[in-house]
Amino acid sequence: MSVIDQVLKGNEEYAKNFMLADLPIPPAKKLAVVACMDARLTVSQLLGLKTGDAHIIRNAGGLITEGALRSLIISHHLLGTQEFMIINHTDCGMLTFTDEELRKQLREKTQAGTIGVLPASFHPFSDLEENLREQIQKAKSHPWIPNHIPVRGFIYDVKTGRLKEVSAD
Amino acid sequence: MSVIDQVLKGNEEYAKNFMLADLPIPPAKKLAVVACMDARLTVSQLLGLKTGDAHIIRNAGGLITEGALRSLIISHHLLGTQEFMIINHTDCGMLTFTDEELRKQLREKTQAGTIGVLPASFHPFSDLEENLREQIQKAKSHPWIPNHIPVRGFIYDVKTGRLKEVSAD
Repeated sequence: MSVIDQVLKGNEEYAKNFMLADLPIPPAKKLAVVACMDARLTVSQLLGLKTGDAHIIRNAGGLITEGALRSLIISHHLLGTQEFMIINHTDCGMLTFTDEELRKQLREKTQAGTIGVLPASFHPFSDLEENLREQIQKAKSHPWIPNHIPVRGFIYDVKTGRLKEVSAD
Repeated sequence: MSVIDQVLKGNEEYAKNFMLADLPIPPAKKLAVVACMDARLTVSQLLGLKTGDAHIIRNAGGLITEGALRSLIISHHLLGTQEFMIINHTDCGMLTFTDEELRKQLREKTQAGTIGVLPASFHPFSDLEENLREQIQKAKSHPWIPNHIPVRGFIYDVKTGRLKEVSAD
């Protein structure tokens, strides 16, 4: 059985006892979280959040890319979130490669070339805290994200389950 | 107390009983999921996934944007996922506005103009199934996503907790 067919059975179980039909669209805690897609982070659990509490935006690295900004702007302006949290983590896959290495691998493994194909960059990084500070600044400095929205950054330690705050400066 | 300070207390509780220090980076189920950021979707729960099982990529709408493609390509080529699942949902906020309306609101609510500011589009949509089919096609047709990777699309019903598959064609 394919993995997707397995998780569909998981969904059948979930739906049997479903009690959340009346949750409103706006997140109850007025919180938006941007986090890495890493399998070791179950964002709701590690923050003690319940279904309905927060928008959760995730991508490789937990980066404030154009897509994360699109989501945060919708989150605040249309759905009322008032605090933003960015979560990067130790042992991140984004620390393990360079754009050049990955593009070489893509040329070798696929029939396709790499010229003109998007994404043009995969945004790997070599310093976890420095990268996180950059992401915080990107969100804080965006003209459509009001200054009164707190944007705070954290590194999740995959060995301890603990978040550590990193200052923006 | 700010909401972020509240969830940090939640994280302290989580870390007290942390038992997951030895999970490897590659997702155990070799699965990557792209889903909407909506607060009513706790992706791991609605699929019966455990921490460590899958990459979870989320953005407003659950769209195959450049950022989602960046994440999926890293997920497959560097971390070995072999099946992709896209989850959109009923009552999505993305069905409730147009780019023009949101940009007008941004001009009125912020001091900033909207010319030359990214994102240039927020990618709202008016037909849930048609949008999902487009997202499936975008992933399937990307030159760096091999043809042997299944890309399957689902609509999550926020009233029942149930996933319904939508065919790509």
